[in-house]
Amino acid sequence: MRCDTLWRNARLATMAESHAGLGEVMQGVVASLDGRILYAGDAADALALEADRVIDCEGRWITPGLIDCHTHLVWAGSRSREFELRLAGATYEELARAGGGILATMRATRAASLDDLVSQALPRLDALLAEGATTVEIKSGYGLNLEAELKQLRAARALADRRPVTIRTTFLGAHAVPPEFARDADGYVDLVCRSMIPAVAAAGLADAVDAFCEEVAFSPPQVRRVFRAAEAAGLPVKIHADGVRAMAGAGTVATLLPGAYYFLRDTQPPPVRLLRDHGVPIALATDCNPGSSPLTSLLLTMNMAATLFRLTVEECLLGVTRHGARALGLQDRVGTLEAGKDCDLAVWDVERLGDLVYRIGFNPLHGRAWRGQWIA
Amino acid sequence: MRCDTLWRNARLATMAESHAGLGEVMQGVVASLDGRILYAGDAADALALEADRVIDCEGRWITPGLIDCHTHLVWAGSRSREFELRLAGATYEELARAGGGILATMRATRAASLDDLVSQALPRLDALLAEGATTVEIKSGYGLNLEAELKQLRAARALADRRPVTIRTTFLGAHAVPPEFARDADGYVDLVCRSMIPAVAAAGLADAVDAFCEEVAFSPPQVRRVFRAAEAAGLPVKIHADGVRAMAGAGTVATLLPGAYYFLRDTQPPPVRLLRDHGVPIALATDCNPGSSPLTSLLLTMNMAATLFRLTVEECLLGVTRHGARALGLQDRVGTLEAGKDCDLAVWDVERLGDLVYRIGFNPLHGRAWRGQWIA
Repeated sequence: MRCDTLWRNARLATMAESHAGLGEVMQGVVASLDGRILYAGDAADALALEADRVIDCEGRWITPGLIDCHTHLVWAGSRSREFELRLAGATYEELARAGGGILATMRATRAASLDDLVSQALPRLDALLAEGATTVEIKSGYGLNLEAELKQLRAARALADRRPVTIRTTFLGAHAVPPEFARDADGYVDLVCRSMIPAVAAAGLADAVDAFCEEVAFSPPQVRRVFRAAEAAGLPVKIHADGVRAMAGAGTVATLLPGAYYFLRDTQPPPVRLLRDHGVPIALATDCNPGSSPLTSLLLTMNMAATLFRLTVEECLLGVTRHGARALGLQDRVGTLEAGKDCDLAVWDVERLGDLVYRIGFNPLHGRAWRGQWIA
Repeated sequence: MRCDTLWRNARLATMAESHAGLGEVMQGVVASLDGRILYAGDAADALALEADRVIDCEGRWITPGLIDCHTHLVWAGSRSREFELRLAGATYEELARAGGGILATMRATRAASLDDLVSQALPRLDALLAEGATTVEIKSGYGLNLEAELKQLRAARALADRRPVTIRTTFLGAHAVPPEFARDADGYVDLVCRSMIPAVAAAGLADAVDAFCEEVAFSPPQVRRVFRAAEAAGLPVKIHADGVRAMAGAGTVATLLPGAYYFLRDTQPPPVRLLRDHGVPIALATDCNPGSSPLTSLLLTMNMAATLFRLTVEECLLGVTRHGARALGLQDRVGTLEAGKDCDLAVWDVERLGDLVYRIGFNPLHGRAWRGQWIA
């Protein structure tokens, strides 16, 4: 059978649900045709394959391309000065006077052009890709008015034209209350529901709608209104919130964000045992954002999940592949090495898969493929 | 005046003790001659310089090349399986049966050839260099017999022939008691003092002697014997231990190792306030080792020191430059941008120096120079 590219002489971690553990194949091949996986599995079971291009992996490990299923990657401005002032002992008041917090990012994002947003996000995206990411979710939520939210989503979509990567966009208008509505969160929710969600949906700029349900953000009734508006616009929903039993019942994926836990020096780890007991799949993501997780490494995200949350190596690797895909509703397209899925691969210079989780500040990526396109 | 290379159009952080803070120069140049810094400072104050090669830094920041003043970079074997088993809930007994701990690394290091040790250490060294390191200290201490300790130090020295980097070696025979002396630590200390230190000194393989003073390792009287032997052999000493007042009195540098604190989930941070109050200079290092800090990133080390120990941005940057140099007794050669010192530079693609500490899992190195040799 003809194929475009054949990765041979590889060890595979297919991550397929039908296999035990990580679906390890010690003598494996992956064949791509028209951007999809034609075959991934044991070399001995493969049909005769005639490839236009053969890549000898010299025994390296292949995993599915990594998935960062929760980021706020597109923003303008920097919060490093705020970080610096806080370490130097600045009081909350001094920080507020220096103009910190999410509203600082909102102001810079509103003021930025579309091109500025794209060019400021690109180095962050490149850092993720350099470690084998092939799918990245990006939320809006720093515009907090219609025009700026649309601009932020357009910038996220534009990144997909600039780099070989699958981008999924999420409208997060209900991220914070902008100063125009300082004492009228309900008024802002009205705007989100009546004007922003319909406009975002009509422009085809979002794949989903998210809302931030917490004391400092929006109340459950407010979030319910946002979700009804999303449903009316035909968009799936996701939520920044807690509640393990409800998640288990609804078939939801829990996305853990160890970078924010680390950066904010949180001391209350997520209820990992409860998630396990209820069979809730666990995804891991960078949460890349300027305020609580200026992190652009999925490898480090895995190490933090293991070190700080005691996730196993298997849970970590599934969290940035199969379960990350499911968190995005992309389980039929990416996240495992199975025939018919996008041929998104990460090829690693490691002896053991566990090395990807164990090592800290080390990038053993040999190369990656996105929709069959090999980038080494 | 003629120079070999001129880095122009740069912002400098000289880190010089004579300047306040980080010694920032907003319109700076650095000129090298014969591997040394001929001039580093304000472009307006520079004499007329005729350079064989001019590098336009386009406004980028230049810091001294980074210094990792405490690593155990040379070892053989992997401990990622031990890490994996521990996360999967293995008991201490199961781990011991699986052959973990420092003795596993000792066995693999003893069994490895010199070439194996070099080739296994190179990717770790390369990760440090890729983030702007130009000086790396490497300790022995996984051989724990004369032959293997000499081999480990030779491997460390050999790395300097393979990469443009300054390597400082430290003999750490008193790292752990090897199984041959399981119930006779004093007998092992005899071997260290009478046979190993003189042989290491005679071979010229160590720049210093270190000892691990802790309940699980060696007692203060044992360490005192090791240090007397080092002194007799003409080698300076350093110590893995605590005691702020003694350090202040002796003009010692305290090297903090946030990677090990993070990886071991330690909850007792180092006495940063006490160190500040006593004016003890703080150096930061990766402590790169397979058991407690499989970390090969000085950028991440700085972020961890800020996040976990609340060091300021200035303290972090001085910790991997000027104070790192002083910890190695190299304060006259490296660690600041001053005329006469080695022309070791790191050139960074960041808007603010604070970005080097604030961001996580991101490498903005544009290029580095080692003894005037530009590597971009």
